[in-house]
Amino acid sequence: MRRALELAANGPATGPNPRVGCVILAADGEVLAEGWHRGAGTAHAEVDALSRLPRGGARGATAVVTLEPCNHTGRTGPCALALIEAGIARVVYAVTDPGHESSGGADRLRAHGIDVLGGILEAEVSGFLADWLRAARLGRPFVTLKWASSLDGRAAADDGTSRWITGPEARQDVHRRRAAADAIVVGTGTALADDPALTARDAAGALLPGQPLPVVIGGRGIPADALLRSHPRAPLFFATHDLTAVLADLHGRGIRHAFIEGGPTLASAFVAAGLVDEYLVYLAPALLGGGRLALGDIGVTGIDGQCRLTIEHCDRLGEDLLIVARPR
Amino acid sequence: MRRALELAANGPATGPNPRVGCVILAADGEVLAEGWHRGAGTAHAEVDALSRLPRGGARGATAVVTLEPCNHTGRTGPCALALIEAGIARVVYAVTDPGHESSGGADRLRAHGIDVLGGILEAEVSGFLADWLRAARLGRPFVTLKWASSLDGRAAADDGTSRWITGPEARQDVHRRRAAADAIVVGTGTALADDPALTARDAAGALLPGQPLPVVIGGRGIPADALLRSHPRAPLFFATHDLTAVLADLHGRGIRHAFIEGGPTLASAFVAAGLVDEYLVYLAPALLGGGRLALGDIGVTGIDGQCRLTIEHCDRLGEDLLIVARPR
Ligand SMILES: NC(=O)c1ccc[n+]([C@@H]2O[C@H](COP(=O)([O-])OP(=O)(O)OC[C@H]3O[C@@H](n4cnc5c(N)ncnc54)[C@H](OP(=O)(O)O)[C@@H]3O)[C@@H](O)[C@H]2O)c1
Ligand SMILES: NC(=O)c1ccc[n+]([C@@H]2O[C@H](COP(=O)([O-])OP(=O)(O)OC[C@H]3O[C@@H](n4cnc5c(N)ncnc54)[C@H](OP(=O)(O)O)[C@@H]3O)[C@@H](O)[C@H]2O)c1
Repeated sequence: MRRALELAANGPATGPNPRVGCVILAADGEVLAEGWHRGAGTAHAEVDALSRLPRGGARGATAVVTLEPCNHTGRTGPCALALIEAGIARVVYAVTDPGHESSGGADRLRAHGIDVLGGILEAEVSGFLADWLRAARLGRPFVTLKWASSLDGRAAADDGTSRWITGPEARQDVHRRRAAADAIVVGTGTALADDPALTARDAAGALLPGQPLPVVIGGRGIPADALLRSHPRAPLFFATHDLTAVLADLHGRGIRHAFIEGGPTLASAFVAAGLVDEYLVYLAPALLGGGRLALGDIGVTGIDGQCRLTIEHCDRLGEDLLIVARPR
Repeated sequence: MRRALELAANGPATGPNPRVGCVILAADGEVLAEGWHRGAGTAHAEVDALSRLPRGGARGATAVVTLEPCNHTGRTGPCALALIEAGIARVVYAVTDPGHESSGGADRLRAHGIDVLGGILEAEVSGFLADWLRAARLGRPFVTLKWASSLDGRAAADDGTSRWITGPEARQDVHRRRAAADAIVVGTGTALADDPALTARDAAGALLPGQPLPVVIGGRGIPADALLRSHPRAPLFFATHDLTAVLADLHGRGIRHAFIEGGPTLASAFVAAGLVDEYLVYLAPALLGGGRLALGDIGVTGIDGQCRLTIEHCDRLGEDLLIVARPR
């Protein structure tokens, strides 16, 4: 199981990906194959490991996997079925899958006469998967809120101009993180003011391989010629201010990581609703003054009610700083 | 001279202290004594070096010093005189003293028949003394502006409560830096709202050895029982909004490093006037929202007019961050 956890750690570290590892062992304990999950849309760890064996090569073997094999056909088929078909005799896993659609893998395996043992190294693997487990339990995507501001907390100059506050390294970092998320979310205010493409692009402007689903929240209509309408994935529009309902809907569509890019009104609403799991604050070495704040009213009145965070990282990106923080 | 510069670097690195080093050499090149300046109110480098020799021990020797010996009686006597009285035959220095009252040391030495050579390693030493030289040339103190804010740029919660945003490590760092400055400056708004002591204290609340001069700027009167009136040094009150005039007056009183602690109105006025040489931004891992900004209007309207800074350091202080930046 320790080796499976090591393999799991090869997966992409951004966002709430279920980083899963799998080792397939012969009856005598010999390692037959190893595999891990490389991110959304790619093979799950069990299938990745099985794919390294010739047909029939896993017959009678034991699969050691960090997460209960899934029982659900998403972008890939259910792993429980793959293990059954491969003739695996025994499955050992660490953490039970809390997902509503994907759980039940262990029962299905048992129903096919496979010897199943769960809970091995459970605490350690649960810690490793904390973000993903939390989102799965809450039945909503993991929420990353990003904003860029000057050192004095402004998202734009007083006349509304904001291109650019942060430099190319910071902007490229945003695109890289967008590409790793399942959805990118803005309010109608940003959609109307900036006409953003909501794509993940490289430094040369070319589309990155992963493209998040573009999502716009708010009642106002978005023009037919808006750039985001030519996004490679058809945008979703939610004519509501009920963020909990939007997140539940997104979760139902398989979105596990939502990347909220604002603007200030939507960002403040997410903070006020306590729906943010991770903050990315890009701070530019500039002062702007004026009234265009990155965050508006978040429902805090006195210092005792302050929304306290824990800073996880503070890194330089070119001339800028990226502060990664989490709610206490 | 390289050795003298090394010695100079032993001096206190905070603020615009003229960090000066001095080596006294015998005619055969043997090092007789070394000295450096340890900060405001202590012996200058030349006097420090001479003090390490017995009476008459410097007769006929050469003094190598990074800054032109001063010709001015401040908290210590003029160094030019000390060198003359010690019987020094030759003085070699790097940078000419640009100070209005302290310059003229080289001429005075020459008038006493001493062989004087300036400009040795001048560029390197000028770079090392840049802050001090700049303030001396401008005829005003070096200005450090400090504020503490939440990640979203608020200096207080919406109801005005602000104790505490930052933690004990950050607050202790402020006191340490106050102690190294010559004056601590606030607006009447802060003086009236917070009734601050404006002293530099240790973690236990005891006064630190160095106490900056307390300075209050603004027209409103400060009550007779205000805490800052019991500061170990008699506070200065300037009933004006003319910051340039205040700084010129402070410079005339020997203040070389002013530490501006706000509040937001005074801080913004210093930024808008282009009078800030160094920024200390203490960022707490908290979100506050609301209208109490650390910085208000600084005269920037569009993004092209943004006040760009260079981040020199970004350090963790307990749970907080300290960003040290300078104007471009
Ligand atoms: N610096 C940055 O990181 C950054 C990032 C993005 C945007 N921006 C700037 O932000 C500006 C736009 O600001 P904005 O605040 O108007 O944009 P916004 O937050 O994108 O949009 C605000 C709109 O979101 C809708 N909305 C959805 N859910 C809501 C809720 N729970 N509560 C309140 N409103 C909700 C409302 O639209 P309806 O009225 O249509 O219902 C509201 O008017 C632009 O100038 C853009 O450049 C800056
Ligand atoms: N977070 C922090 O780092 C920090 C630091 C200090 C204070 N604070 C908070 O700030 C609040 C006080 O804010 P504040 O802005 O009223 O305080 P302030 O900036 O200390 O004082 C403002 C006053 O300064 C005077 N002034 C002097 N020169 C000026 C100029 N060039 N332009 C404009 N005004 C000038 C004016 O007084 P007259 O009207 O009397 O002429 C003005 O009303 C307090 O609640 C305090 O707790 C926070």
